[in-house]
Amino acid sequence: MSHIVPACLLCAVVHGQMPVEVVVETDRVLGVINHLEPLSSRHCVVFPRRHVPRLHDVDDEESAQMASAIREIARGFELNDFNVLLNNGALAGQTVFHVHFHVIPKWGAEDGLQMSRGEASP
Amino acid sequence: MSHIVPACLLCAVVHGQMPVEVVVETDRVLGVINHLEPLSSRHCVVFPRRHVPRLHDVDDEESAQMASAIREIARGFELNDFNVLLNNGALAGQTVFHVHFHVIPKWGAEDGLQMSRGEASP
Repeated sequence: MSHIVPACLLCAVVHGQMPVEVVVETDRVLGVINHLEPLSSRHCVVFPRRHVPRLHDVDDEESAQMASAIREIARGFELNDFNVLLNNGALAGQTVFHVHFHVIPKWGAEDGLQMSRGEASP
Repeated sequence: MSHIVPACLLCAVVHGQMPVEVVVETDRVLGVINHLEPLSSRHCVVFPRRHVPRLHDVDDEESAQMASAIREIARGFELNDFNVLLNNGALAGQTVFHVHFHVIPKWGAEDGLQMSRGEASP
């Protein structure tokens, strides 16, 4: 079902071409520690093994297993404060086009995800 | 299964005490337009009908149905660029303690979710 897409960082992880610290592993999904650009200690990334660029295209099983993996990370690391973030599309900040959720612990005000309210245009 | 928690905004929505625009409705989960504090047009919020304060405590079905509802919103509104965000815990920005995912369309650089990289402390 899965196949390698050249130059895809997460496909390289799936196929064992990058050393990673795996925290959740199922038949369809991986959760790994983000050692490349962590926003805080234990920042994790959860993604399907299959190369799927956008959230629209994940199947039911991938969708459910990613949600379950996120919850498992929150429970396993006993995270009280954390953000879950998906960036879908370049304008929304997606840089790796293999769909992935970030699980970003917030250990203090200065680390983790920093947000500010933009110009709302409802 | 669900019960009203006084002063919980999302329990009030579940129990029909607040007028809302429902976009996804299942036996366990609701998705509604966020008209109170939208970061962009069609900003949605997805949450379980049951009052569950934290992500740790959602059950398998709620977890899967929330993930499915998020995907359904992305597909239904044909969103190319959007962010999915969960704030869990006060330090991480949670203000309504009934677990909920935001689905925030990004129509332009100036609207939607604005993020900046904090001091990483891995």
